[in-house]
Amino acid sequence: MIKAGIIGVTGYTGIELLRLLQQHPNVKVTHVFTESYSDQEIAEVYPHLKNHVQLKGEKLDLDAINKNCDVVFISLPHGHAEKIVAPLLQAGKKIIDLGADFRLKNAKDYQQWYQHPAVAETLLQQAVYGLPEQGNRAAIAAATLIANPGCYPTASILATLPALNAGIIDPQQCIFDAKSGVSGAGRSLALQTHFCEATENLTPYQIAGVHRHVPEIEQQLSTAAKNSITIQFTPHLIPMIRGLLVTAYFKLNKAMTQTEVQTIYQTAYQNETFIRICPAGKAPQVKQVRGSNYCDLGIYVDQRTQRLIVISVIDNLIKGAAGQALQNMNLMYGLVENTGLINNVGMYP
Amino acid sequence: MIKAGIIGVTGYTGIELLRLLQQHPNVKVTHVFTESYSDQEIAEVYPHLKNHVQLKGEKLDLDAINKNCDVVFISLPHGHAEKIVAPLLQAGKKIIDLGADFRLKNAKDYQQWYQHPAVAETLLQQAVYGLPEQGNRAAIAAATLIANPGCYPTASILATLPALNAGIIDPQQCIFDAKSGVSGAGRSLALQTHFCEATENLTPYQIAGVHRHVPEIEQQLSTAAKNSITIQFTPHLIPMIRGLLVTAYFKLNKAMTQTEVQTIYQTAYQNETFIRICPAGKAPQVKQVRGSNYCDLGIYVDQRTQRLIVISVIDNLIKGAAGQALQNMNLMYGLVENTGLINNVGMYP
Amino acid sequence: MIKAGIIGVTGYTGIELLRLLQQHPNVKVTHVFTESYSDQEIAEVYPHLKNHVQLKGEKLDLDAINKNCDVVFISLPHGHAEKIVAPLLQAGKKIIDLGADFRLKNAKDYQQWYQHPAVAETLLQQAVYGLPEQGNRAAIAAATLIANPGCYPTASILATLPALNAGIIDPQQCIFDAKSGVSGAGRSLALQTHFCEATENLTPYQIAGVHRHVPEIEQQLSTAAKNSITIQFTPHLIPMIRGLLVTAYFKLNKAMTQTEVQTIYQTAYQNETFIRICPAGKAPQVKQVRGSNYCDLGIYVDQRTQRLIVISVIDNLIKGAAGQALQNMNLMYGLVENTGLINNVGMYP
Amino acid sequence: MIKAGIIGVTGYTGIELLRLLQQHPNVKVTHVFTESYSDQEIAEVYPHLKNHVQLKGEKLDLDAINKNCDVVFISLPHGHAEKIVAPLLQAGKKIIDLGADFRLKNAKDYQQWYQHPAVAETLLQQAVYGLPEQGNRAAIAAATLIANPGCYPTASILATLPALNAGIIDPQQCIFDAKSGVSGAGRSLALQTHFCEATENLTPYQIAGVHRHVPEIEQQLSTAAKNSITIQFTPHLIPMIRGLLVTAYFKLNKAMTQTEVQTIYQTAYQNETFIRICPAGKAPQVKQVRGSNYCDLGIYVDQRTQRLIVISVIDNLIKGAAGQALQNMNLMYGLVENTGLINNVGMYP
Repeated sequence: MIKAGIIGVTGYTGIELLRLLQQHPNVKVTHVFTESYSDQEIAEVYPHLKNHVQLKGEKLDLDAINKNCDVVFISLPHGHAEKIVAPLLQAGKKIIDLGADFRLKNAKDYQQWYQHPAVAETLLQQAVYGLPEQGNRAAIAAATLIANPGCYPTASILATLPALNAGIIDPQQCIFDAKSGVSGAGRSLALQTHFCEATENLTPYQIAGVHRHVPEIEQQLSTAAKNSITIQFTPHLIPMIRGLLVTAYFKLNKAMTQTEVQTIYQTAYQNETFIRICPAGKAPQVKQVRGSNYCDLGIYVDQRTQRLIVISVIDNLIKGAAGQALQNMNLMYGLVENTGLINNVGMYP
Repeated sequence: MIKAGIIGVTGYTGIELLRLLQQHPNVKVTHVFTESYSDQEIAEVYPHLKNHVQLKGEKLDLDAINKNCDVVFISLPHGHAEKIVAPLLQAGKKIIDLGADFRLKNAKDYQQWYQHPAVAETLLQQAVYGLPEQGNRAAIAAATLIANPGCYPTASILATLPALNAGIIDPQQCIFDAKSGVSGAGRSLALQTHFCEATENLTPYQIAGVHRHVPEIEQQLSTAAKNSITIQFTPHLIPMIRGLLVTAYFKLNKAMTQTEVQTIYQTAYQNETFIRICPAGKAPQVKQVRGSNYCDLGIYVDQRTQRLIVISVIDNLIKGAAGQALQNMNLMYGLVENTGLINNVGMYP
Repeated sequence: MIKAGIIGVTGYTGIELLRLLQQHPNVKVTHVFTESYSDQEIAEVYPHLKNHVQLKGEKLDLDAINKNCDVVFISLPHGHAEKIVAPLLQAGKKIIDLGADFRLKNAKDYQQWYQHPAVAETLLQQAVYGLPEQGNRAAIAAATLIANPGCYPTASILATLPALNAGIIDPQQCIFDAKSGVSGAGRSLALQTHFCEATENLTPYQIAGVHRHVPEIEQQLSTAAKNSITIQFTPHLIPMIRGLLVTAYFKLNKAMTQTEVQTIYQTAYQNETFIRICPAGKAPQVKQVRGSNYCDLGIYVDQRTQRLIVISVIDNLIKGAAGQALQNMNLMYGLVENTGLINNVGMYP
Repeated sequence: MIKAGIIGVTGYTGIELLRLLQQHPNVKVTHVFTESYSDQEIAEVYPHLKNHVQLKGEKLDLDAINKNCDVVFISLPHGHAEKIVAPLLQAGKKIIDLGADFRLKNAKDYQQWYQHPAVAETLLQQAVYGLPEQGNRAAIAAATLIANPGCYPTASILATLPALNAGIIDPQQCIFDAKSGVSGAGRSLALQTHFCEATENLTPYQIAGVHRHVPEIEQQLSTAAKNSITIQFTPHLIPMIRGLLVTAYFKLNKAMTQTEVQTIYQTAYQNETFIRICPAGKAPQVKQVRGSNYCDLGIYVDQRTQRLIVISVIDNLIKGAAGQALQNMNLMYGLVENTGLINNVGMYP
């Protein structure tokens, strides 16, 4: 059994990770850490886990991790991971960081977008961006430190890569109109996530390229294109708990048929367990991936405008966070990629 | 492997049953029947099941069941089950009916409440009411025909039995104020389930003892009490998809402490896998059982009024329908009671 | 023009009051006070009021009130009103307090339920409980200090008075199962009002007679009955913004017909502008009063149990708070009771 | 008093129109027509209107209109208006059609997009597109037949006109990512508007330029630009009742500052009662216009991409339908433009 710890377990991502890990046939969660609820039974804080989790929240304790964990998941706000990661790596632990601190390879970019110094350069270079479907499974398998992608980047990058790699779109004209459920904003209290403010509402935010997921998407697309790419990205808060949908607009380089583009996407992802391409003419809805690790894609060619429109949906807490972390862990341990995720079909309705 | 069929698969209960059964380690679903979507891939009608279900909807075909099914789940509106059940029983099949046709033992009651003739008396007597926690597991295990309880009765009866059996409440003064999510009204179209009508709304319905779950609750409580009991029951439609909460008001026969009553409930259900008693002073929320087969109970003694108030929550589609059906099937086949249900911890948030 | 001030304007009740007052033909709002947003344009904090409100939030300033206000509405948490009310009364201002500090006539009760010393006895005795439909319009009209009722008490008392006054129910057997939208919990941040916690959920709270509205309801019903009454009251949090529904259970003293009881309610409220009795057999929904000052009542006699069930719905922010305050102000100034409220028909859907 | 009739009163648009008209100081509604609820009291079908509306639904009756109406509002599905409009115009009535039959000036376009023959050419030419803020008030005032704009076109066109008229954007690169509440889909029953399907979901539909509002937007923008414009438009269904938000992406012809563009919008709309420009850096939320006739606009210049992003929000049932119809009626009768709409500030929260 793989012995796992979770740092930051009582946020929505952390608790979802715990739910998934306790179902995983090869994992035993040995320690869960939380500042807010230390010394409390997790099953009291989150009673849906009663009878399934017999763990108390603890204050962070690196010694306990050193003794009793093989792998550690970190789910903390940005800026907090370095001082935890460095000693644990030295102690030979595998680490999957669900925060932002290791995602941007360029320390200056990190400083600029996060207004906080980046982690040490060696750590930045050591970290592997854990989006298996972009084609770096070998690197993930060999990694000791995974930078788990953000939710918006996951949906946006997966919507783009086949067209970008096939060279059929203008890489400088990508527009991502993104919509996320409220759990993406976390469990900490804020006016915008008050029920009365969020319900019967729809709020765009961080408009005109100021969201911190912008450099992350640009980095990954630029790497794929071997060229610096500038994107347009607008996030919106949607009155639903989970789910994230990106409507991606691409300019086709030449006229193409629906079938041609559909084939490019189907071929690119034909071996992917967690990507499902909708039949031509069908758009995915958020609800069909809720509770699962899938990214479902709908492909549309608009002959009137010569644009390609891709609809990409994920559950922001699973494929956009905890599920993808678990998928990365499976790769790191040589397990079948969907171990512990196979039964997460989602709930409908 | 147990070969299972589902009749009426594309309703919310049917499709939830299919989702649960495809995760069950001992079951293979061989046929799914649906009038509305026959000849269509189920995974096209319900794309959350894509890659998990490779079945086409079929028009009802008793021969196919005879050949390829050991057990059949029937999820149809009332009045349709008899003509299906009779021949299948003769052919030696096990049947779990999720509808209402076999729940009331008294044919006159059925006729009166459902305005429809009851099924044949032999079938009525053969059917076993499948609520394992009421203490009839042996009968369920031996049964060939299960009448799966209604959602409101499940939550209401489980809230009442320990107090009733202990003789601490006046059986003629039970009031059940019940609240259900919209999925309890099914997937067929009606104005009251239109999003714009149901959202930002709260609707009581079938007030003053006219709901069809009234005689079902009264029958089971009367049997337990060995006395004819008349209850008060008011259902309300709540703007949420899943979940059902009953606030039950009981008159205590004498002054009792919180601890005394709490102990009665904990003792009564101490061996139950799917019942969780909240600590004294804690009320269950609907969200903590969403996606699971649990019934969570909160116990309150009001010293000012000498009343016992029990809060009972279930997921109406799981413990209130599909999950309980599967639990009954496990008992009928001698499997561990929570097989195929153990990982359904629910999603939070 | 009546010059009005609002203290605590940026809570949900305060801002709703401002919206209603700015439509009132006889009122000019001259000052609005807020700790959280002082020195900010109200229309920036609440942009729905842009072009309609040209007021800045101010820190509380009794001098400004003395100079520029005739009437003051106070919408503050309990325990804060006395030190404001005493000097303003002396200065001859009319005051409508939407908080709890003047509702309970008995200082000991207040101390017990609110864990805070009551206001001075003279103030308690001076305050008039402002529920016009209970029949004390003359007292309200003559009052200088109004204790505006709580939301739950408004709906509960109006559901009870006709039956209680007619002597047809057992006053010691009243059960109020109450359901409220989330705005009833206010705008301050708390986990239970986080969107992800409140949506797809249903939460009972302060069960078994511990909610602070219990003594308020008991006081008013006891006064009407000239007898000390103990009630059962259970509040529930419902995933909707506005709206409050009480399902009231009463024990009839003798068998009565639907028509008899229906007539009692219709007669009792026949001159009331803001009470609408549903036709026999029709239950009110929350949505039909949303945005209005109505209390709609549905009457049901259950012959099986000899109980009377009354469904009572209001908009918690209007008839349950701001609208009722305005109705009281109209009475205090001798205006037609529905002035400034007549066009508030509510929005549907 | 202007005597008004409404044809198709029991849809969401029709009933909202009735709510607004009954508050209008210069209008008396004399007849309301409905196929579904003829001979029923409107206040029984829609109990929020009880005490405010004393009208029965009637089957369509042109004679009654001829005798008792000055102006008629038609809120019917497309294809039904011509046979009503032609005789009423001959009888000298003023008509405001809230459907689609008179919006497209080109009969071939109508045939192509609606798969139904267009109305007679003379009617098409007689109809005036009733979007006052585009600058055709004189034509509206003189019109006898108004084609009331669609909800998406209203928000999209108002977002575009200042930039388009100022010549600062490439007219062939306009992308409208549009999001609407469920009431936009009407009250008729469909699976996609079932509560359980729409809640906790987000659904794009009619992707890649096939929505019928595309030619309407293109027609109005082309007219303004005196050039044929092809747009990109993607609608999404959002789990909220009311509200519509368009995120519009425009390519600036040259680098511009936030202030320059902000000034262009503020100047263009400086005399408009129903358009509010947000301060620089502030995005409008849907909730701030809910219940009102406002269109609120947020302006963003992205220096990284040289794009202009405009966020446009309306209440789809008011500025997107019934309110705009009433605004047009005011212009047709020489009334102040916001008569009967001034108190519709919207409800918050």
